[in-house]
Amino acid sequence: MSLPESLARLVEQLQKLPGIGAKGAQRLAFHILKNPREDAERLVEAIRDVKERVTYCSTCNNITDTDPCVYCTSAARDHKLICVVEEPQNVGVVEKTREFRGVYHVLMGALSPLHGVGPDDLKIKGLLERVGAGGVDEVILATNPTVEGEATALYLARLLKPLGIRVTRIAMGIPVGSDLEYADEVTMTRAMEGRREV
Amino acid sequence: MSLPESLARLVEQLQKLPGIGAKGAQRLAFHILKNPREDAERLVEAIRDVKERVTYCSTCNNITDTDPCVYCTSAARDHKLICVVEEPQNVGVVEKTREFRGVYHVLMGALSPLHGVGPDDLKIKGLLERVGAGGVDEVILATNPTVEGEATALYLARLLKPLGIRVTRIAMGIPVGSDLEYADEVTMTRAMEGRREV
Repeated sequence: MSLPESLARLVEQLQKLPGIGAKGAQRLAFHILKNPREDAERLVEAIRDVKERVTYCSTCNNITDTDPCVYCTSAARDHKLICVVEEPQNVGVVEKTREFRGVYHVLMGALSPLHGVGPDDLKIKGLLERVGAGGVDEVILATNPTVEGEATALYLARLLKPLGIRVTRIAMGIPVGSDLEYADEVTMTRAMEGRREV
Repeated sequence: MSLPESLARLVEQLQKLPGIGAKGAQRLAFHILKNPREDAERLVEAIRDVKERVTYCSTCNNITDTDPCVYCTSAARDHKLICVVEEPQNVGVVEKTREFRGVYHVLMGALSPLHGVGPDDLKIKGLLERVGAGGVDEVILATNPTVEGEATALYLARLLKPLGIRVTRIAMGIPVGSDLEYADEVTMTRAMEGRREV
């Protein structure tokens, strides 16, 4: 099909977004084309605003539009407890539990020698400084349960433990509401290992 | 999670796009946030360009950045054969066959009393004028094989046949490469009805 050039260019740009393929990009482009100009303008403004206003917290690297972020400045949070995550969006997953009242530290990735990501590419120095400054009791390592996340957690544990604080790792096991039927063997092994007295 | 306000607004705007849910919108927003400003600018420009440059062909209603469109002005196409489709993106599906050498007429929808779409809301008048002006041998009704598309095809057939031209409907049946196992009974019935001598 010979799409008008500007439409083809929009499809091309949309296809660069994660999880959007050729068909999806075309559907989005036609939607933008068909809908009122004001809708497109609102989207455009929202994209620009995000690039202009959102920044990273100089303490924990979480995304924020005030620096330091709401967690790092909150008197209601327990600053003796730091939860370490890989990406800013992981903070939301922990917050959703409504159980965690500590603060965060975002690494901005995980160790991955295959992709050329070493310790210096992650925000590890800042974490060590925060712990080194004293006043921290426990660091919860909530990196992903992947090869990279596990390696990162192990690496951090080796650095943090000598500082005399408690270092913990989130539990791995069968997801709540799931069925054993669908659990892979590694997860099942972890679930068995992590079993607790009822 | 308390997302920075501008990020929350981008998520909200992205969620309005078709096929993008809450999780998908958040993933896209974080992607836009993380990637270089130039990428975001290119996307923004592409969206604006589409809204500014793309228009509809005054003859066939297909999207175009020149009016009339490439199909309507092409000497290589057979202007005696008009393929009627519901939406501009359907033109691409027909073009991909590389078999059709006629021209198009886009209705901009299908009859749907439930959604308040009547004949006056579709580009039917223009089609009747094109056929009425003479020189058209056949109109292929390629509206969707849905209740609305079928109703539209029947409605158009009734209007077009008295004009003394050939009016045809695309075949419905089992998709090529598919398995009878997955065919619903309506499609199977259509496939049986439409059977041809081998």
